[in-house]
Amino acid sequence: MAIDTLKTWHEIVESKNNDALDELLADDVVFHSPVVHTPQEGKAITKLYLSAATNTFSGGSFEYVREVTSGNNAVLEFVSEIDGITINGIDMIRWNDEGQIVDFKVMIRPLKAVNLLHRMMGEMLQKLNA
Amino acid sequence: MAIDTLKTWHEIVESKNNDALDELLADDVVFHSPVVHTPQEGKAITKLYLSAATNTFSGGSFEYVREVTSGNNAVLEFVSEIDGITINGIDMIRWNDEGQIVDFKVMIRPLKAVNLLHRMMGEMLQKLNA
Repeated sequence: MAIDTLKTWHEIVESKNNDALDELLADDVVFHSPVVHTPQEGKAITKLYLSAATNTFSGGSFEYVREVTSGNNAVLEFVSEIDGITINGIDMIRWNDEGQIVDFKVMIRPLKAVNLLHRMMGEMLQKLNA
Repeated sequence: MAIDTLKTWHEIVESKNNDALDELLADDVVFHSPVVHTPQEGKAITKLYLSAATNTFSGGSFEYVREVTSGNNAVLEFVSEIDGITINGIDMIRWNDEGQIVDFKVMIRPLKAVNLLHRMMGEMLQKLNA
């Protein structure tokens, strides 16, 4: 039976149980960061990036405000506030017929928020990699 | 009869006939730029921003690569290349029951592309406003 992708994703975000990503992510999942052009390929690096994001946002407010979904694609819009800066962004997700995520792309606006995330994600990735 | 919002939008992008935006945009449409936090309110300023975007992208390649739509919302993902820099972004569109666009939000990745767009859109808006 296929995984209910979006339900599982929302559960992970709420529980911050990042190990549950092992089942939700396909082995060949690709992650596209809001900051860097080069795609990050594979489950290990994608889990690292998504965990860093979860940890970064857990310091402030975080709320999904719009969900657009058709077929095997969804776009989840979120709003967050960190250090007094409003971050507006999307998680753009594609999954396979088993419900496993094969492509995860994040975009962020405005420019000030991209710069803030760039700095914070860098610090968080260093910590998680240490 | 309601406007077919996405069909009309794609026709405008292809024809670069920005004056057709007068019918497609609601009077109280709000535009959210990828660069600046403050929403731009009203048809005149939204038309100006969308025209500046059309003109900016017409200097390079531009292609829609994914369309996710449900209810009165759509997310159109695009890829463009300007000055050797790949720009990946979304148009996030919401319309009313008459099919007129009431909310138009743009997000861009990666950081290098946001900075490029920031510079180019500034120059284009100055020209159009002159």
